Amino acid sequence: MPTANPILIPELRVMLAEGDTAGLREVAEELHPATVAEFSEGLDDAEIWRLLDAVPVERQSEIFPYYPMPRQVELFKAADRPHLGPLLESMASDNRDDLLRELDPGFVEEILPLVAKAERHDIRMLLSCPEGSAGSMMTTEYASLPAEITAGEAISRLRSQAPNSESIYYIYVLDPERRLLGFVSLRDLILARPTALVSELMQKDVIGVRVEEPREHVVEKLARFDFIAIPVIDDRGRLVGIITHDDVLDAVRQDATDDAQRIAAIAPLGEGYLEAALISMTWKRGIWLAILFATAAITAMVLARWKSPHAWLVAFIPLVIASGGNSGNQSATLVITALSTGDCRLSDWKRILRREFVVGLLLGMLLSVPGYLLGLAYAPSPLHALVIPATILSVVMVGSLVGSVLPLVFRSIGLDPALMSNPFVSAIVDVVGILLYMGMALAILGD
Amino acid sequence: MPTANPILIPELRVMLAEGDTAGLREVAEELHPATVAEFSEGLDDAEIWRLLDAVPVERQSEIFPYYPMPRQVELFKAADRPHLGPLLESMASDNRDDLLRELDPGFVEEILPLVAKAERHDIRMLLSCPEGSAGSMMTTEYASLPAEITAGEAISRLRSQAPNSESIYYIYVLDPERRLLGFVSLRDLILARPTALVSELMQKDVIGVRVEEPREHVVEKLARFDFIAIPVIDDRGRLVGIITHDDVLDAVRQDATDDAQRIAAIAPLGEGYLEAALISMTWKRGIWLAILFATAAITAMVLARWKSPHAWLVAFIPLVIASGGNSGNQSATLVITALSTGDCRLSDWKRILRREFVVGLLLGMLLSVPGYLLGLAYAPSPLHALVIPATILSVVMVGSLVGSVLPLVFRSIGLDPALMSNPFVSAIVDVVGILLYMGMALAILGD
Repeated sequence: MPTANPILIPELRVMLAEGDTAGLREVAEELHPATVAEFSEGLDDAEIWRLLDAVPVERQSEIFPYYPMPRQVELFKAADRPHLGPLLESMASDNRDDLLRELDPGFVEEILPLVAKAERHDIRMLLSCPEGSAGSMMTTEYASLPAEITAGEAISRLRSQAPNSESIYYIYVLDPERRLLGFVSLRDLILARPTALVSELMQKDVIGVRVEEPREHVVEKLARFDFIAIPVIDDRGRLVGIITHDDVLDAVRQDATDDAQRIAAIAPLGEGYLEAALISMTWKRGIWLAILFATAAITAMVLARWKSPHAWLVAFIPLVIASGGNSGNQSATLVITALSTGDCRLSDWKRILRREFVVGLLLGMLLSVPGYLLGLAYAPSPLHALVIPATILSVVMVGSLVGSVLPLVFRSIGLDPALMSNPFVSAIVDVVGILLYMGMALAILGD
Repeated sequence: MPTANPILIPELRVMLAEGDTAGLREVAEELHPATVAEFSEGLDDAEIWRLLDAVPVERQSEIFPYYPMPRQVELFKAADRPHLGPLLESMASDNRDDLLRELDPGFVEEILPLVAKAERHDIRMLLSCPEGSAGSMMTTEYASLPAEITAGEAISRLRSQAPNSESIYYIYVLDPERRLLGFVSLRDLILARPTALVSELMQKDVIGVRVEEPREHVVEKLARFDFIAIPVIDDRGRLVGIITHDDVLDAVRQDATDDAQRIAAIAPLGEGYLEAALISMTWKRGIWLAILFATAAITAMVLARWKSPHAWLVAFIPLVIASGGNSGNQSATLVITALSTGDCRLSDWKRILRREFVVGLLLGMLLSVPGYLLGLAYAPSPLHALVIPATILSVVMVGSLVGSVLPLVFRSIGLDPALMSNPFVSAIVDVVGILLYMGMALAILGD
């Protein structure tokens, strides 16, 4: 199977040392930009700039965004200023926006004068879109046409616009005020009679997103309709940019990792596991471990004061509490993933609670059986043993309900449902579990 | 902003009752296929077939795959057999393959004779690819050309092939044995001089996947190179199909949900939260709750036998064990997500263990401080109180190491790292935690 060429760091270093510009140019021109970035990542900053200088700025701007973001920032800081203006002008606007958001605002203000005025306007517009909105994901490079030309003319205009590869496949049809009238795919243009009018060929029922819509909406729409790109529209119906499939895929993968980390009570790393500084990773885990520790400490303090005549009950406390915590964790995860994939919405809350009530009841009954058997082995009488299954049943139900309610509450007040749900569930179930256990012991055994 | 038409079920029902075929045809022709499926999902099976019958089979085959999979299966079982042959022939091969894999094998054998012979060959080939492989995700519809024709001729050949919209954007260049020589994008063909040869225009460094490669490789390659589609090649270098961006996006979203559910100790539902039958959801959660319950029961039995003279220590058992469990959960999740996004590989195991050792040590020290303060408040002496921080430190370190080792072990023996990692971590940390606690008490206080 043909694959990318295995050019290695030592060979690149030899070319750099020998000033072999032709060799460097061949590497940087012939391979896929992602492969060039991957192979050269091991070089130092000055070496990377010398490699990039072997090719025209258009090619540099294709390779550059494939370096990991922290490296892009480092390369920018290390660069000669004259490099940066042409590179920024040539970069795709979504990649440029991602990079500028990571740079120090003071540094951005210093380098913006190096960029041509028209591009500067674009940069400021994109930077002003709030993070996580459709606007922050879009590129302002797209192909557009008026409605009243023919397919043949449309194709020759596209030849002269020569848009880049990610944005040529859908062409947006605009009126003179840049309001979006419809779109045609390049496929339809090619297959049409050359004399057919764009206005006849175009699809009028355009599905788009507004510039301020959250990124989950973008993902959901693009995934549902299998689009290569989705148009972004301002509040006057004017096209301001497009979001392409590759950026949506990256966003989905990043969001999935962040969600999984939040579910396990970690503040999302936001970078690769092996790249994250140990101290920042310790902090992102430690903060949640400390919160979980504090709630467990409350349970411990209650236990330490518990002077029950039924000492055998103490041994079963971790078991009873863990059953509720695990079941709550399951419910929270199911509701978080269902909300984030669009499988269910906030308005389904009644159905969700009804389901969790039934499932919690069934799971509680399931676990009470081994719980009762275990109790029988240690309790002084079958009546005493009843405390364990009765508590398990109620704690598992409380866990399921708390686990499903919390993500819904977070979503309803505009927070990410994955945020803190599971630590909160543990905290609540820990405290409620111990109170229920004591309550059941009192109710069944008296004191 | 223009959006999809809000056609509603009652209006569709009126059209069906009145036999308004023209109205039904307009709905099913004019809207995006995903929207037609969404609006008509509330109808019963016979009504949906009557709606589909209003349009030609080509259009039916575009709409049909947008129904949720369980509904597609139901519709197939409820259909008149003569419907199925033409519909199956017309469906994109990847959608057809997904559906046939869900149907009863006996039923598949019954309906296959309704399909034309050439398509039947395709169907059997795709069905023979193992689930989760590149082959099972691919479609056999792609545009291909020989190398020695001109760009102008290439475009007119594409016009006569009229490939469907998801596969026209990259055109694969094949030799007479169907071996893959390179590819051209539709963009490059349009922008080229009409007399340029395809062999000059094509990109020769093709990045593809082999038919048996696992689906994570497909996702990683398509995401890294921002492709719209990636070619699938057999062991003799022949092109057998392509995998398109939309199917990769769907796979990533499904995998992310499955992983999150496994991390929370749920056997993946594999369907929407609100669609899953309550009894199957109870089973998928109950099986893991029961396993976790069994390990917690071991802890309880150890505790119940513990006749330490230091009774105050018992109250802190849940706290100490939970610290290790939470930290292990974090480590397992970080390693699982890093492996699944390609951030790290099995061969990085030394670096991973070194990182987890350091972070575990830091986290353990962090939590020992409040642990010691808590101990001082309840222990008979500062020496006695030392048992708590000493155990926390060691349990947190054990948790981090176990949490990072288990997913690596699962991956190395070919299992999904997310599978069972967290329940196993909890089980091991529960047992090790209680032994460490008893050991520390013995070592520090004697007995």
